[in-house]
Amino acid sequence: MARRLVPLFNRVLVEKIVPPSKTNAGILLPEKSSKLNSGKVIAVGPGIHNKEGKLIPVAVKEGDSVLLPEYGGTEVKLGDKEYHLYRDEDILGTLHD
Amino acid sequence: MARRLVPLFNRVLVEKIVPPSKTNAGILLPEKSSKLNSGKVIAVGPGIHNKEGKLIPVAVKEGDSVLLPEYGGTEVKLGDKEYHLYRDEDILGTLHD
Amino acid sequence: MARRLVPLFNRVLVEKIVPPSKTNAGILLPEKSSKLNSGKVIAVGPGIHNKEGKLIPVAVKEGDSVLLPEYGGTEVKLGDKEYHLYRDEDILGTLHD
Amino acid sequence: MARRLVPLFNRVLVEKIVPPSKTNAGILLPEKSSKLNSGKVIAVGPGIHNKEGKLIPVAVKEGDSVLLPEYGGTEVKLGDKEYHLYRDEDILGTLHD
Amino acid sequence: MARRLVPLFNRVLVEKIVPPSKTNAGILLPEKSSKLNSGKVIAVGPGIHNKEGKLIPVAVKEGDSVLLPEYGGTEVKLGDKEYHLYRDEDILGTLHD
Amino acid sequence: MARRLVPLFNRVLVEKIVPPSKTNAGILLPEKSSKLNSGKVIAVGPGIHNKEGKLIPVAVKEGDSVLLPEYGGTEVKLGDKEYHLYRDEDILGTLHD
Amino acid sequence: MARRLVPLFNRVLVEKIVPPSKTNAGILLPEKSSKLNSGKVIAVGPGIHNKEGKLIPVAVKEGDSVLLPEYGGTEVKLGDKEYHLYRDEDILGTLHD
Repeated sequence: MARRLVPLFNRVLVEKIVPPSKTNAGILLPEKSSKLNSGKVIAVGPGIHNKEGKLIPVAVKEGDSVLLPEYGGTEVKLGDKEYHLYRDEDILGTLHD
Repeated sequence: MARRLVPLFNRVLVEKIVPPSKTNAGILLPEKSSKLNSGKVIAVGPGIHNKEGKLIPVAVKEGDSVLLPEYGGTEVKLGDKEYHLYRDEDILGTLHD
Repeated sequence: MARRLVPLFNRVLVEKIVPPSKTNAGILLPEKSSKLNSGKVIAVGPGIHNKEGKLIPVAVKEGDSVLLPEYGGTEVKLGDKEYHLYRDEDILGTLHD
Repeated sequence: MARRLVPLFNRVLVEKIVPPSKTNAGILLPEKSSKLNSGKVIAVGPGIHNKEGKLIPVAVKEGDSVLLPEYGGTEVKLGDKEYHLYRDEDILGTLHD
Repeated sequence: MARRLVPLFNRVLVEKIVPPSKTNAGILLPEKSSKLNSGKVIAVGPGIHNKEGKLIPVAVKEGDSVLLPEYGGTEVKLGDKEYHLYRDEDILGTLHD
Repeated sequence: MARRLVPLFNRVLVEKIVPPSKTNAGILLPEKSSKLNSGKVIAVGPGIHNKEGKLIPVAVKEGDSVLLPEYGGTEVKLGDKEYHLYRDEDILGTLHD
Repeated sequence: MARRLVPLFNRVLVEKIVPPSKTNAGILLPEKSSKLNSGKVIAVGPGIHNKEGKLIPVAVKEGDSVLLPEYGGTEVKLGDKEYHLYRDEDILGTLHD
């Protein structure tokens, strides 16, 4: 019975996509192929006010696939699942097929 | 006979929710399950003035359930009870059932 | 014949309230009960100018009971009495019965 | 089947141009000749908002040849290829024949 | 034949008041009584420009008795006399009888 | 066949003037006489936007003789020649005969 | 045949006044009397732009006698003479007889 987290300010709740370290046939993949650190945006905050007092909305939205920095982010556990919180300025980009 | 604390600026007074480290039946829970660091907002400050001189109100309100950062916050004792003070910008998000 | 100190900018002159470390009956209180670091505001500065040139008055006023941070503040001796100077932004909140 | 990365804010996705360390005839070039650290811009972010809330576009565009700083940048692997992400303010200049 | 110093920006030229470390009768005073670090303002600068380009005058004026911070300030010798320069923001307050 | 570099933002491309360490007659000059660290401006960037969004042009122009700081600057090799990139704010001044 | 240096931004070119370490009669002066670190302003830059884009002129002018900080400044040699460059904000004040 997990609780829902609504991030504050420009924070973004991300569920990391764990890259398979084995192929379906059970062959171990070399370390390099797991390098892409990506995730799915679960929830975003309302944004932050700039110096003029205007609200700047968060640069990503729920459902986006995002490229994450190698370090940083705050681990959060909600129910059984593990998530990470990032400031939107720390997210590197969005991924598209 | 506890005194009431009214926080200044964008500070937030939080009562931490101590997660049970045993189940009702007395079984010790593994360390991971106590990871969620949450609390209840008891009182909030009036907010801070931005560079333009406008008052930006605090991003959470009395009664909110909040997700707290692992480090930081100032321990405060009022009467018998222990509370913590946070800047609203350090609170990670609000929790909803 | 103590001199009167008028603080500059957003500084606040505070007289700390020393919590009794013994009860009236002479029983030593455990360390925890003296944890509340509070004081009484004796004098406040005029405030500071924000980036727009507007004067932002100090957030507390003479006579307020205030909760002080554990560290910081500048010790000042006027006549026989000991006071402390704080920036108003470092004062945690006001205390009310 | 590489995914496409759209950088956020003022980030720039760059494919580094690896300088040949041998001539076509197989003669090893001295270390100095490989000093120029250049790349080709693959994608740019939308830019960042300044303090006034105006969007400042990124200073380079897709297809530009750019001179890169010796240190910094974030390695990104998309499909088989290796790229680097830079903030546009860290890119030294554009190269023209 | 001392030269006169006109401070620049928000600097304040102060002549420190050396507290007597002996009473008139020659009795050594305990260290604590010399704790008050005060001085007399000899000259002040024109002030500094804020971000809007307005000149913010210095917060103290010639002749003021001021309470000085324990550390900081720049020692200046003009003729035979020793003075100290402080930024007005580092001066703690003004002293009044 | 050197490529041309157009600096970004307030960067300045400088060709350093190497002071002769010997006189024409072959007499070694003492170390001190080579102290002046000067160069010639080869290319300048468009400038940077200030907080108001206005473009502030670079403070030096192509062809200027400039006095350079002892440390800093980024070495760049274009074709056979070695250049240095500086932020215009790091250039100390312009030199005139 | 010294070249003339025109400082950039708010930089100030100063010729230090070396205090005599001996009296005319050859008597060595104690170290303290050489403490005053003063100089003469040779040239000043045009000033710097504030956040609003207005040019703030340099706070001293050619010919001023100035009091210099004990540390800082950049040594510059023009022809045979040694000068120092300071940001005007680092100059402590002007000296008048």
